Amino acid sequence: MSQYEIMLFFEQMNPNQKKEFLKQIKSDYRQILIKYFSNDITLKEKIDKFINAVFCANVPVPKIIEIHMEIVDEFSKQLKLEGRSDYSSLLLDYRLALIDMLAHLCELYRRSNASKS
Amino acid sequence: MSQYEIMLFFEQMNPNQKKEFLKQIKSDYRQILIKYFSNDITLKEKIDKFINAVFCANVPVPKIIEIHMEIVDEFSKQLKLEGRSDYSSLLLDYRLALIDMLAHLCELYRRSNASKS
Repeated sequence: MSQYEIMLFFEQMNPNQKKEFLKQIKSDYRQILIKYFSNDITLKEKIDKFINAVFCANVPVPKIIEIHMEIVDEFSKQLKLEGRSDYSSLLLDYRLALIDMLAHLCELYRRSNASKS
Repeated sequence: MSQYEIMLFFEQMNPNQKKEFLKQIKSDYRQILIKYFSNDITLKEKIDKFINAVFCANVPVPKIIEIHMEIVDEFSKQLKLEGRSDYSSLLLDYRLALIDMLAHLCELYRRSNASKS
């Protein structure tokens, strides 16, 4: 069973449910970033799953930005630990992934909104 | 009278109306980018006006991305003409402005959508 099947709105979840849900989407988003510039054939599926989960749970957009910042920060620390800080400018390219996610999500909300008008 | 007061949905506009509307929001978005990293006190107002126009006209999100790309491309050409290509990497920072716009717009659609549920 998909971990996203229990589809409460994020704001209606209790603290434990919120924590579990955030843990899951953060893990999914991390995988998206890791694979974003690869030719991984499962990337589109991962993105669709993530967008769908966030849309169905009606997650506030600032929370998505926060998750992105946290993961990029983790990656940055990891690069430093590995003495590869010269690659850290590459982390800025992940902004493209965030733009991609926000554009998809925004279009989904826009269409859903228009269909209810 | 604001040029945004006639609030047809973008998709319902005739070709001339679409052209005029796009010209106006492109001009507004260009001003936002130009002022984005300044302390211009009218920046917030410009952003609110732009987001509101795009939201009310229900502009497809790919069109926003297209406008962003076109303007950054214009800036890039201008920098080359002025022999300031060394500044062109700064253009990448405008992605932050696009993230900001998309996040605001997405949150607006999300809330509007939830209020109709």
